[in-house]
This record gives sequence, structure tokens and C-alpha cells, in this order.
Amino acid sequence: MKMVYLFHKGSDDKKLLGGKGAGLCSMTEIGLPVPPGFVITTEACREYYKKKRIMKNLMDEVKKNLKVIEKKAGKIFGNPANPLLVSVRSGAPVSMPGMMDTVLNLGLNDETLKGLIRHTDERFAYDVYRRFISMFCKIVLNIDEKFFDDVLEETKKKMKIRYDSEIDVNSLKDIVHEYKEICRKKTGKEFPSDPYHQLSLAIESVFRSWMGKRCVDYRKEFGITQEIADGTAVDVCTMVFGNAGNDSATGVGFTRDPGTGENMLYGEYMVNAQGEDVVAGIRTPKPISEMKKEMPKIYSELLRIRKMLERHYKEVQDFEFTVEKNKLYILQTRNAKMNPSAFVKTSVDMFREGLITKEEALLRVKPEMLETLMHRRINPKTGVKPVAKGIPASPGAASGRIVFDPDEAERKGRTGERVILVREETKPDDIHGFFRAQGILTTRGGKTSHAAVVARSMGKTCVTGAEDVVIDQKAKMVRIGKTMVRKGEIITLDGSTGNIYIGEVETVDSEFSPELEEILRWADEIRTLGVRANINTPEDAVRARKFGAEGVGLCRTERMFNQPERLIIMQEMILTENREERTELLNKLLPMQKDDFKKIFRIMKNLPVTIRLLDPPLHEFLPTVEELTHEIEYLTHFKDTLQAVDHLPKHLSLLTRELKGLKKIKDKKYIDKLIADKEDVLRKVKNLVEVNPMLGHRGVRIGITYPEIYEMQVRAVFEAAVDVIKEGVKPKIEIMVPQVCTAQELKWVKERIIKVNKDVEKKTGIKIGYRFGTMIEVVRACMRAGRLAEIAEFFSFGTNDLTQATFSFSREDAENKFLPLYNERKILQDNPFEILDIKGVGRLMMVTIEWGKKTRKNLKVGVCGEHGGEPRSIEICRQTGVDYVSCSPYRVPVARLAAAHAEIKHK
Amino acid sequence: MKMVYLFHKGSDDKKLLGGKGAGLCSMTEIGLPVPPGFVITTEACREYYKKKRIMKNLMDEVKKNLKVIEKKAGKIFGNPANPLLVSVRSGAPVSMPGMMDTVLNLGLNDETLKGLIRHTDERFAYDVYRRFISMFCKIVLNIDEKFFDDVLEETKKKMKIRYDSEIDVNSLKDIVHEYKEICRKKTGKEFPSDPYHQLSLAIESVFRSWMGKRCVDYRKEFGITQEIADGTAVDVCTMVFGNAGNDSATGVGFTRDPGTGENMLYGEYMVNAQGEDVVAGIRTPKPISEMKKEMPKIYSELLRIRKMLERHYKEVQDFEFTVEKNKLYILQTRNAKMNPSAFVKTSVDMFREGLITKEEALLRVKPEMLETLMHRRINPKTGVKPVAKGIPASPGAASGRIVFDPDEAERKGRTGERVILVREETKPDDIHGFFRAQGILTTRGGKTSHAAVVARSMGKTCVTGAEDVVIDQKAKMVRIGKTMVRKGEIITLDGSTGNIYIGEVETVDSEFSPELEEILRWADEIRTLGVRANINTPEDAVRARKFGAEGVGLCRTERMFNQPERLIIMQEMILTENREERTELLNKLLPMQKDDFKKIFRIMKNLPVTIRLLDPPLHEFLPTVEELTHEIEYLTHFKDTLQAVDHLPKHLSLLTRELKGLKKIKDKKYIDKLIADKEDVLRKVKNLVEVNPMLGHRGVRIGITYPEIYEMQVRAVFEAAVDVIKEGVKPKIEIMVPQVCTAQELKWVKERIIKVNKDVEKKTGIKIGYRFGTMIEVVRACMRAGRLAEIAEFFSFGTNDLTQATFSFSREDAENKFLPLYNERKILQDNPFEILDIKGVGRLMMVTIEWGKKTRKNLKVGVCGEHGGEPRSIEICRQTGVDYVSCSPYRVPVARLAAAHAEIKHK
Repeated sequence: MKMVYLFHKGSDDKKLLGGKGAGLCSMTEIGLPVPPGFVITTEACREYYKKKRIMKNLMDEVKKNLKVIEKKAGKIFGNPANPLLVSVRSGAPVSMPGMMDTVLNLGLNDETLKGLIRHTDERFAYDVYRRFISMFCKIVLNIDEKFFDDVLEETKKKMKIRYDSEIDVNSLKDIVHEYKEICRKKTGKEFPSDPYHQLSLAIESVFRSWMGKRCVDYRKEFGITQEIADGTAVDVCTMVFGNAGNDSATGVGFTRDPGTGENMLYGEYMVNAQGEDVVAGIRTPKPISEMKKEMPKIYSELLRIRKMLERHYKEVQDFEFTVEKNKLYILQTRNAKMNPSAFVKTSVDMFREGLITKEEALLRVKPEMLETLMHRRINPKTGVKPVAKGIPASPGAASGRIVFDPDEAERKGRTGERVILVREETKPDDIHGFFRAQGILTTRGGKTSHAAVVARSMGKTCVTGAEDVVIDQKAKMVRIGKTMVRKGEIITLDGSTGNIYIGEVETVDSEFSPELEEILRWADEIRTLGVRANINTPEDAVRARKFGAEGVGLCRTERMFNQPERLIIMQEMILTENREERTELLNKLLPMQKDDFKKIFRIMKNLPVTIRLLDPPLHEFLPTVEELTHEIEYLTHFKDTLQAVDHLPKHLSLLTRELKGLKKIKDKKYIDKLIADKEDVLRKVKNLVEVNPMLGHRGVRIGITYPEIYEMQVRAVFEAAVDVIKEGVKPKIEIMVPQVCTAQELKWVKERIIKVNKDVEKKTGIKIGYRFGTMIEVVRACMRAGRLAEIAEFFSFGTNDLTQATFSFSREDAENKFLPLYNERKILQDNPFEILDIKGVGRLMMVTIEWGKKTRKNLKVGVCGEHGGEPRSIEICRQTGVDYVSCSPYRVPVARLAAAHAEIKHK
Repeated sequence: MKMVYLFHKGSDDKKLLGGKGAGLCSMTEIGLPVPPGFVITTEACREYYKKKRIMKNLMDEVKKNLKVIEKKAGKIFGNPANPLLVSVRSGAPVSMPGMMDTVLNLGLNDETLKGLIRHTDERFAYDVYRRFISMFCKIVLNIDEKFFDDVLEETKKKMKIRYDSEIDVNSLKDIVHEYKEICRKKTGKEFPSDPYHQLSLAIESVFRSWMGKRCVDYRKEFGITQEIADGTAVDVCTMVFGNAGNDSATGVGFTRDPGTGENMLYGEYMVNAQGEDVVAGIRTPKPISEMKKEMPKIYSELLRIRKMLERHYKEVQDFEFTVEKNKLYILQTRNAKMNPSAFVKTSVDMFREGLITKEEALLRVKPEMLETLMHRRINPKTGVKPVAKGIPASPGAASGRIVFDPDEAERKGRTGERVILVREETKPDDIHGFFRAQGILTTRGGKTSHAAVVARSMGKTCVTGAEDVVIDQKAKMVRIGKTMVRKGEIITLDGSTGNIYIGEVETVDSEFSPELEEILRWADEIRTLGVRANINTPEDAVRARKFGAEGVGLCRTERMFNQPERLIIMQEMILTENREERTELLNKLLPMQKDDFKKIFRIMKNLPVTIRLLDPPLHEFLPTVEELTHEIEYLTHFKDTLQAVDHLPKHLSLLTRELKGLKKIKDKKYIDKLIADKEDVLRKVKNLVEVNPMLGHRGVRIGITYPEIYEMQVRAVFEAAVDVIKEGVKPKIEIMVPQVCTAQELKWVKERIIKVNKDVEKKTGIKIGYRFGTMIEVVRACMRAGRLAEIAEFFSFGTNDLTQATFSFSREDAENKFLPLYNERKILQDNPFEILDIKGVGRLMMVTIEWGKKTRKNLKVGVCGEHGGEPRSIEICRQTGVDYVSCSPYRVPVARLAAAHAEIKHK
């Protein structure tokens, strides 16, 4: 088993060499200036975990390859005369920025230091030495970096200087001494001086970091399974020094602007610095454009390299470079993490430049990214003034309560509270706080600082380098511009401008960029799966059209009853035991519902509108037993209090006078009546209580019990249709029955709809076309698909309920009680309520469609559960033979793109 | 359309001619002495309901056929010289004894009366006349019979006589006069004197009775749908008179004893009486055997007819006959309603006599009948003495509270109360009370009285003609022998002996008759479907064996925890949050469960025992939130009371002294601790509450959350196995996992079972074989059947849960809220929880079995839901390819027979 590969062998095997290693090999192959080095494979890492230690044969191979490098570099590892220093970096198959360990300048000890001094200068050498010791101690020996930072800060304070680069050589010697002391004290041993021992320890440390908590958390959160990445590679590379003087520099480049996608070299650099200085965001670097003046030769070389990289990778690259004494080295390249809107723009641009095909361009944009683009932005019309401004590091608008601590952000975020994480700078250890925060604000760092990179990759709003923001951790306060803000108060960030506002600021839907429109047009060209929207109100319908829905796949009629003035009538309607009274109350609701339908028909014009008749159990419209019991208890208590006033002893007459006022508030009879009414409602509500509401009296079962409800609803539909037909609109009505389990139910409802339809036609003299269909959300409906298709012209899978019925999982119970454990123990890979279960629910859908189409060849089949907007589920829908999916308006663009992806993948 | 058929055309078309009409035609054909007559078809009845009146063409046809009869009888309808009288009787396609109307002696008026007198005698003629008027008034004109009865009773009282036959001719004349007066007063019109008008009214009345309430109720209760019987036929037949003197008689005969099945002429007769006198049970008739002496010629003719009837119908017949002046007429025959045990005996006998084949014999016995044979009987060892004795009219033992009113019987019976209906005699109007009563006791009537016939057909315990029982309706008391018993007190009936006991008497399982054993042996020979039992305890296992189960298809392990001393440990186990503690408590439960398994293995010997691991949600073992809340409230209240004692004002010192005692009962600290404990439990119980318990944390989901529970259970199984193996028993263990929805669950559990098995084998050195399988009760398991069959060696359908999941019906909610309406509106034909739904659940089962067997050819498939003991469902199980059904021990014989039926029908 070969465990070490030299860079000069070109390879793209990321699984074996890791992303970074494969990149270094490829770059070497296409002739980029990569310092000599080699990769230790992920296989070696797995071997390490099997044996629990570094095997001798690995170190033998490492030594052999070091010899080759020594020859190329003209330096010898551990040789005091002309020592070779190396960097030891992790490189997993999948990029996990900042998650794993790196050790630079390895190979230094008191002896080799002398050689380094001889070939550079004393100050530089000592600076490198102190960096190495602190980094090694922190990464490999696990000593808290605080001890080293304190020494550095102390020195700077004593010397009254600001930058590390101003520390003089004698102070650096003292620092090295103190660092070694810290190491001895904390580990009880001398700092390891044997370079090979250093190397072996560093390699093991990188291996170990693969199973470190933050790494494991990251992989879990991003769904990086063992199949995708199993262990990390280690890259050992000749050190080049960006801190070797003012003709040296280190930097990060992007082949295009990762924030906007603009086709230009983008990046930042720092003169006389090592890479860690840039990434950590400790000093604010300069934009790369300044290099044009400061280092013109290097700059033009970078421009050339930018083209070479994109031609090779056909993907925007994020690369690290170092200039050592006017010579450029490329240390790493990887696909750039970009802002979703930048992703979209570069996709369109790269297709137009002929770099990639249209299908490649589409596949580059992940459907989930669009969700971020749907993020709302600050309403420009509000006119609210920002109080400070930082660097716009990741776009979007976010409001939330200030927290300073990532643990707290996680804790509060989990409970559903909206929080903004405010930090001076962020570190990989903070990442759990990112997941639960609405946005991130840092006072230091630029667009490539840790906070910026991670936030962008998550699509979180982020503002960095806000120098006008000063955190006072002790006082739990932050000064933003001139305003003092306390922990827990609300601020709003605009990640597109860098603006910071006090309080919550109104937001609006974002506009689509022309490139996004273009991508979605391409998606529409390619996809065969239709995309409709699930709506509750006319407002939703407007949004659905805006986001490109091809109609309404599910118009929920019950939510129309939830407006306060309607709810009261609805409740009365439910509580009456008298059919005439019920019909009368329904007649009051009819014009309201009709009005909604009219608006929706006008908005959707000639696009289909699928209207689902009343679905939820009636008790959902009523107060709960608990609420009513409390109300009655309260009223009774209140009454008792009033009564007590009557019986107040005479010697408390003053109190009596005072309380008489209270007594006048309400007379007891009124309260008695209130209590009696509430008790009546309580009795009825108790009658409606169900043991398993999911499987109870709902959907068409209500429709059959109280036929007048569905009759009112379809009358409202048809009367609304007549009105808009008169206006010239041609509504495409589809009426859909929920919770159907037998053909008889469907027949029963259909007969009544036909009657109402004929009646309205007769009264108005206007012909109203419509289609009749059924939800498929009960398993028995699947089994009876052939028979149902005789009556229904279309099927619409309610995948939420169907998933519950197929698994016999109640969603809320399952997610609270055992689904997390099931995922943890790998009993189930995913949450089937989030990602459609292809093996169970999917199979059921397939037989349903097959049986249904056997009866009715042109049966139209849709999906209107939440899965209809989830990319992996959409792919499954296409496989099962569904004609269209329907999802919330905001997810319509996601679904359009996902449908195109599914098409390309399965063509 | 021919609407009238003469008797002389032989036909067996019961749907057209009704049962009685078809019988009369057939009997005429085979040469039995049937009086001339004709049948009006059911088609004419349907026509009547379409037109809402009797059409002229029907009456024309009737008149034409009357002419033929007149010729045969030598009498003329409506002719004063020699009048023909007819009976007008209903005859539905299905026998509905006593449900519909009959009018006898029709054709009489003041004129024809004279002709009748001329050919008979005056007293007889007036007796017939008064019978005709009262019957016609009651049946056709809807006048309450009470008015006529009062007149008759008044006369008898005045004359100081007991029997109607003792009334002299003058009194009869007065009665006729008074009857006509009643008619005039009640209807405002004269009694109709035109015989054709009488006939037309009578026919219409019979037609109308088909849709009368009691008829409709009866058909609903017995599932007689429109497809089975649509309308009634009307039989018009020459009157023959059993009341023409002492050489005349009327009677009912059975070709075999319907109570015991004995192969002998059986029946009752009454000299000088009309048929109505026998059926109504007003006079107690004589056993038919006495006829041998009294009317030897007629008797031997009846013996001959008995043979002829059975040869023709191949079924025991229940026939009516009349002797008019020493000439025998047969008026009706039908299949006899028999006691289930008689059915069984006659089946075996008739096969042995060569009358029917073995398969016909099996099909004659309906599986539901066996359920009645499983009825318990009075334990002869109790030695309790009966207080009175009646005629054993329908066997079985029944205890219940006395009610006198059928309405009350129905009302109380519906609420689940056990009642005995006590009446002097019963009438068709009382039938609703029969359905809900445990047993029926009458003071009059014999074995063929209404009460006896109906009770037998329902398999209800019945004692008739208990002359020592005297009812005092007003006092709501009854004297039984020498004991006065109040309404609401409990009595016990023994329908096999006629014994009546005060209070509840211990009962035991009935022994099978040799004939039943024979039938079941035949069933076992023929059926291919296996029959196992569902058990909870070793006692159930004993019963299962006794009733012929071929093993245990479902041994529920959770019910073993419901014994009080086990439940406490179980609750502690559930409430602890500490795994060690849980394991410790489980270890306490282990020996108890092990002990149960040992007993069961010993009983079942080498028959398979399928053990289902814990299934119900844990909260089912705990008190409810309501219970705990009440307990805490009570304790708090109690504590407050104790505290109040401390603060009692000084001037109430006497009270204080008294209450001090109370205070000593418990100290507050103890109560505080109790309250705190309860609150702790309440908190945990609230955590366990689920929105949809049916779809919640149960079955294997519990097994995976707390692996130690299943581990304990299988350890108990294997340790029990070791113990009985040492005794020489070879247990056939099948371990079954409930609520499985994915293969991973099954794998997860299987691995743990293997581990425990190996561990027990290692510790004991004894090899323990077992098979591993899964319940199929979650739809997803059906979809994954192919994959599950890789892991499971057998499937067992839990059709209860599977039906709930397939329909998305929660059984309790559905049956309370909308299933009755669904059945009423024909949305669903049956309750799918009672009768397996072939179209939905059945189809799902079929694909499951198909997919499962594709993976594992010899996959064993069972059904262990309640449907496993229901005959129609068993037929469906056989069709879907199930290998065996499993049901409660009591239903095992039913299932064995039903399985044989299914086999015969589908061969």
C-alpha cells in the first residue's frame, strides 16, 4: 500500500489525496509554481485509526519522499547548515474550512535556527521560531493559545507598539524562551527538538483532528457521510515565507469575486506576513487590486494563473499564495465558496464564456442556494438610518437579539429565538453558534475572514470588520456607532451593504437578478415536472406568480376561516346542533370565501387553481379543553371575589366602600351567563376530542357528515367563477377532496358538486367548467387507485399525511420522541417528513400511479405535501412518475431548479 | 309480466315466489296435500312500491286464478250459497318468522256467513267470523287488538269460562256485533263487506308490511340486503279449518327435533284450533307424539310426509299443517331454524344417512353457530338448586338483571348491562329486546312459540312456558317458584334444562358434543389454512389446546405485566431515568415472565408459540394525567384540612381536641413527600403523553429506545426454553417484533436476540432453536416486504393496526364519530374492524405476501388481528395467500370451520 505521493504526479483523486492534496498535484502538473512537497493519503489516516498509532512504515515512506524534496529545494530537513522547513496541513476529501489542523515552519530547533539565520536574518528567523513553537504547542500539544498570546501582548504593551512586526529581535528571543518555558510547564517535558519527531507528532495530530468534536459536528450538520469522506490526507510542503521582508507577502485569491460573481481577480494580501495572519483576520489585509501598483510582476502572474485555474477546474477557485522575496508560490486551490447570487452569476457567465455547458451551469447552482436568494432584504422605503457600517460579507437581511457567546446563540436559537452573534472575530470553535444565529457581526476581519467564509457557505447574513462596533464583554454591552446596546436587544444587519441598524427593520422580498431569471428560464426549458404553489390567501397567489408557479396545486380553504371575524361565525357553525342554523351561518361565510376565490382567480388568470375542500378536524377551529377550563376557573374565581364583597364584616366598612366600585363592574348574572355559555362550549368541545386526531373525523369525513359545508364551499367557487368569467377571466378550476379512502366517498361528494354546479349555471346562465380530483393521502386510496381514477380526473399526493400513515408515525410525536434516536442509530437515514422516503412512500406512490393510469390514461398526478419543495424529494417525485409538484411560493424557484436537476441527472 | 302463479306449477324460485310460495308450489308438485291456491310474486310487490297502489291488472289476474281455485275447491269466492274462504299470507324470499302480516278466513260477510253456516254449523261459523273481523281489523285496518281482546276477556269473565272454545253461539253473535262497532268507531266506516275489496285490502296490507319498521329493523340486524330479498310475495290459499271440531286440529311439525337434532318427527298440535293459536303461544299445545294415539291415521301420514320433505329439500323442515275433519293439509314448509348443536348433529346424521355429502354437511353449519356452542353452561359442581323450571327452549346459560320491557332490555343492553327479558309471551314487536338480552324467560308457550323460535335462531338462551313464574307488571316483581324477585335483580337461566336460579350461578366452558368433534375433524381434514390462538396467559394456552389450536400465533407479553405485583415494578422501570436502575428492575420482572413462558411451553408442547415482544406505549402502564391530578388535588386538600386544625381559634377548643386525633393520622411531612412523588410521576407522565398514541412511541420503537427491555424478554424466553428442554419438552419458539417499519429495526433487534441466545446457550450448554419474524401492521413494512423477508423468517399481519393505518381511521374515533354514518350512507358496506376489508387491506396483504415470498420462498405468513376469528375475513385471508390465522381461543373452532368453508367454496 503506497501511502505517500509526491506533488509532481498529477492526480484528481480527492478521496485518496484529499481536496488540497489533489489540488497541489494538479497544479504542479499544469505548471503552476507549487513548492515541492508530498501527500500522505486518507488510506494512511484510516490505517492510523485501525492501529491507533503512526506505523513505522509510514514514517519510512515519509523520509524517503523528504529526500526527493530536499533535492528539489536544495535544503536538508533537520540540517543545521541549510535546514528545510515544511508545513504540515490537513486536506480532507471535502473542504471543511478551518475545521482541521495545520502546523507551519516545522523542522526548527535551536540548531537549525542557526542555519535559518545564516540564510535569512536573525529577526526573521526568531519570528518564525516563535510562531512555530506557539503553533506546534497549540495544535499538536494542545496547550491553550491564551498563554502564548498573553506573552506577545505583554511584550507589545511594554514596548508600546501595535503590530507583531514591530517587535525587535531581542524581545523575540525572550519570547522564544518564554514559549519554551510554557511548554515545559504545561507538558512537563522539553519542547521536542528532533525534526522527525516533530513531523511524526504533527502528522498524528492532523489525523486525530479528523475525529475531533468540531469536525464531527461539522460533518453531521453538512451531511458529510463516511461514503463521501473517510479520513483526511496530510500535505507536507516546503515552507515558503511571506514574512521574509517587504518583498514578501501572503494572500488569498479568488478567480472571481465570490460575493458578486464578477469576472475579475479578487482577493486580499498582506505584505510581510504568513498565511495564518490573513485567515485569522487578526490584521486587516489589503485588497488584491493594490498589488497592481505594489507588486506589478506578481500581480500579472496572478492574472495568468487565474485563467489557468479556471480552464483546468471549470469552476471558480479560491487559492492561497505566498510571495517569498519576489517569487510567487501557489500553496492551495479549491472550489470557491461563493455567495449564492455569485454562484448564479458565475454560472451564467461561465456558460456564456464557453467554459461550461448549459447543463453544467445549471447543475453548479444547488437548488438549496436559491432559498437564500429568496431571503428578504431591508425595505429601502422605510428610510431608517443605519448607526454603523461594516464590510458586507454575506448578503441578506437579519434581525435578532444580540448574543456574544456562540453557546448561547446555539441554546437560544434552538428554542426558536432569533439571535445575532456579535464577536470580535470568529474561530472554527464558534461554528455551532453560526447554525442557530440569524446573522453574524464581527468587529475585525475582511471578506475572507473565517466569519465571512463560513457565513457565506451557510447563506447566513454576515457583516465583518465593523470597526465602529466595540464589544464590552464584561458589561454585556456593545457600542454600535454612538449607541450603547445591551445584550438581548434587537439589531438588524444588512449583509449586502454592511449596514447595522438598531431594532427590527422592515424587510421585503428580494428581487431576482437577471442571471437568476436566466438560470430559472433554462431550468424551465429543461424540466418536464410542473411546478405549482400551495397557497392560503390571495397574497400568496401574487407571490406564487412572481416566483414562477404554473398554477396553484393546493389552495387550502380552511385558512380563509381563520381571520377573526370569520372564525367567530365558523365556531358558531360548528357548535350548533341545528342543521338550519348551520346552513344559515354557512351562508354568512359564503360571500367571504367567494371573495377570496375571485381574487385568486383574477391573479392566476388562466392557470389551474386546485381548491381543496375543508380538511382539518372541526375542533381545530375551537378553543381547547384546557383554555376553556381555565377561562371557567377564572370567571368562577372572579364571581367568588365579587360575592365575598357582600359578606365583608361590618368593621371593614372602609374596605367595603372601596370594593363596591369593583362590584359594579359586572353583575353576577352576567358572569353566570358567561360561565354557563363557556360550560356549554366546553361540553361540546369535549365531545369533539379525539384519541388520535390524525386518524379521526376530518377531511371528506366531515364533508359527508355535514354536506352543507362542502356545498357552501363549491357554491362559493362557482359563484366566484361566474363573476370573473364576466370580467373576461377564464379560471381553470380543479376541485379536490381530502382524506379520501374509498370510491364511495368520492362519488358521494361528486354528485353534490354536480348539483351545485348545475344550479349556479342555471341561475346565472354561465357555463362553469371544472375538473374533479382527489387527494391521495390515505393508504387505502392508494390501494383503490384504479377505482378512484374512474371518478377522479386527477390525483394529488398529500405526502405529509401519506408519510405518517405509511410509517404509522405521528409527525409531532415521532420528532419529539424517537426520530432523532432513529437517525443517530442509523435505523433511518433521514427524517422522512423532510425528505420523501423513496423505498416506502415512494414505492406506494409508484403503484398508485401505475394502477391509476391503467384506468385513466391521462390521469394528472401531483404532489402537494411539503416534500414538493425539497430538492431530493423532487427528484424522487420525478422518478415515481408524478406530473407536477406544488410547494410554498417561496420554494417555487427551488423546485423549478431541482426539477431541472432531476431531469439532467436521469436523462 | 305474469304476476300470479298457481301452486300446481312446481318452482323453487324463492326470489320471485318467496320462500313460502316456492314451498307450496314444490310440495304440490311432489304430491303433498296442499290446499289449492296461488302466489302473487315479489315483482308485483316491487311494482306496488313503484306505483304506490294496487294496479287493476294485478287484481284482474288474481280474479282469473281465483276461478281455477274455485273449481278445484268446489266453492265460490263471495258466493252466499257455498262460499270459498281464503288465507292471505306474506312470503318473503328469506324467512322472517312472525315479521309480516297474515289474514285468515277472508271472504266472510253477513251473506257468505249464511253459506258457511249451511255447510258447517252456526257456532263454528260465528267463531270464524269473529276471528276474521278482529284479525282483519288489526292487520289491515291497524286497529289496536286490545279492543277486541277486551271484549273477548269480558265475555269469558261474565260466562266464568277459561277457553275461547267454551263461548256459546249467542255470545259469539254479540261479539261479532261488538267487533263491527269497534271497527265503525275507529275507522268511521262500516267493516268492508265486499270479499274482493277485502282481498285487495289484505294484499296491499301484506305488501305494506314489507317496509314496516319491525321488518326493516329485522332485515338490518340480520344483514338481509336488497340483493338477497327485494319485496314479499303474497300467498292466497283456500282456507282449511283446524277448528272445525274435535276431528280437526292445527299444528307445527319439524322433520327432526330442532332443539337436539334427534332424527324423529317433532312438533306440537292443538285440537280444534286455528294456526294462530299455536304460534301465538296463547294455549299450550300438545306434543305431536300424542297424535299417535289421538289421530293415528294422520300421524302415520305425517311420518311419511316427513321423509318426503327431507328427501326433496335435503334440509330439516319446519312445516305447518291443519287437519280438517280428519283430512290432512300441509300449509307451509321452510328450512327449520335449529339450535346450533342440533344443526351440528343433523349435519353429521344426514351425511351418515346418505342424504347429503360431507361438504354439504360442513357448509350447513355456519361458523358463527359454533360461537353459541362455546357458550358457557352452569357448573354442575356448584350444587346450587333451581327455584323453578320451564321448557328448555334454547340452550346455554345466561345471567342478568330482570327487565320486563323489551325497550328497556334494548336500552340497558346497549350500555353493556346484562339483562334477562321476562315476559308472559313474546311477539314479533319485542324482537329488538331479544338482540340485547342475554336470555329470555316466558311464562307461556312451548318449544315452537315465538320466543323459542327467535331465541334459537339467535343462539340466545331461552326458557319458555315456565308456569311457576308469575309476573306482576304493576309491582315490577315476579314470583319465581316461591321466591319474589324484584326488577333489576339477577337471575340465571339454564336453557338446556329449563332451570331457573336466583342470582348469578357459576358457569364453565361447555363440552363439545361428539357430532361437533366430528364436524371439526372433517373441517380439519379439508382446510388448508392453519388455525392458531392469540393468548395472554397460561390459562389461555390451556383453552387454546382444548379448542384445537395448532399453536400460538400471538402470545402478548405485555399483559403478563398487568398483574398488580408486576405492574408496580413495571411502573418503576418506566419512570426511572437511570439505565442501571431500569436493568435492575427488569431483572426482577424476568423470573415472572420466564415462569409464564415455561408454563406456556409445557402446555403447547411441540406446537409453535409465537411470542410478540413488548408492544404498547409505555404510558399505558401508568396512571393518566387526570388520575394523578386528582390524587394531588385530594392530597393537597387533605393537607390544608390538617393545617386548618393548627389555626383553629381558641374558643373552638373542644373541636380542636376532637380534631387532634385526626391530625395524628398522618404527619404533614409524609403528605408532602407523597405529593412531591406524585408530582414527579405527573411530570414524567406528561412527558410521555402523545398527540396520536396510535402512531407514537410503541412497539419496536420502544425496543430500540430501551434495548434492555427486549433483552430481558428474550432472555426470559430462552431461559424458560432451557428449563423445559431439560424436562423433555421441545418448544417451538417464534419471536416476533411489533410495529416494524424498516429493515434496519429488524436487523437491530435480531442482532441483540442472537447475542442473548448465544449467551444463554453458553451458560447452560443447551442449544435453543427459534425462528425470528415480524408483525406486519405498518404500511411501510408492506412496501418493504421483500427486504424484510431477508431478515424475517415469518410475517404475521396485525390486521387491526394495519386496518387503522390503511384507512387512516383511529378505531375508537371512527366507531364513535363517523363509521355508523358511513355504514348508513353505504359509503362503507361493513365495519372494516370487524370484517377484513378485501379491497384495501386485502390488496395490501396480497402484494406484501407476493413481494415477501419473492425473497423467501418458504416465508410463513399468518394473521393475528381480531379478523383471524371472523368467518368472512378468514375467507379473505385464504384468498390473499395467508398460511394460518390466529384468534382468541374461544373463536378457534369457528375459525377451523370457516377455513374449511373457504376451502370448499374456492375449490
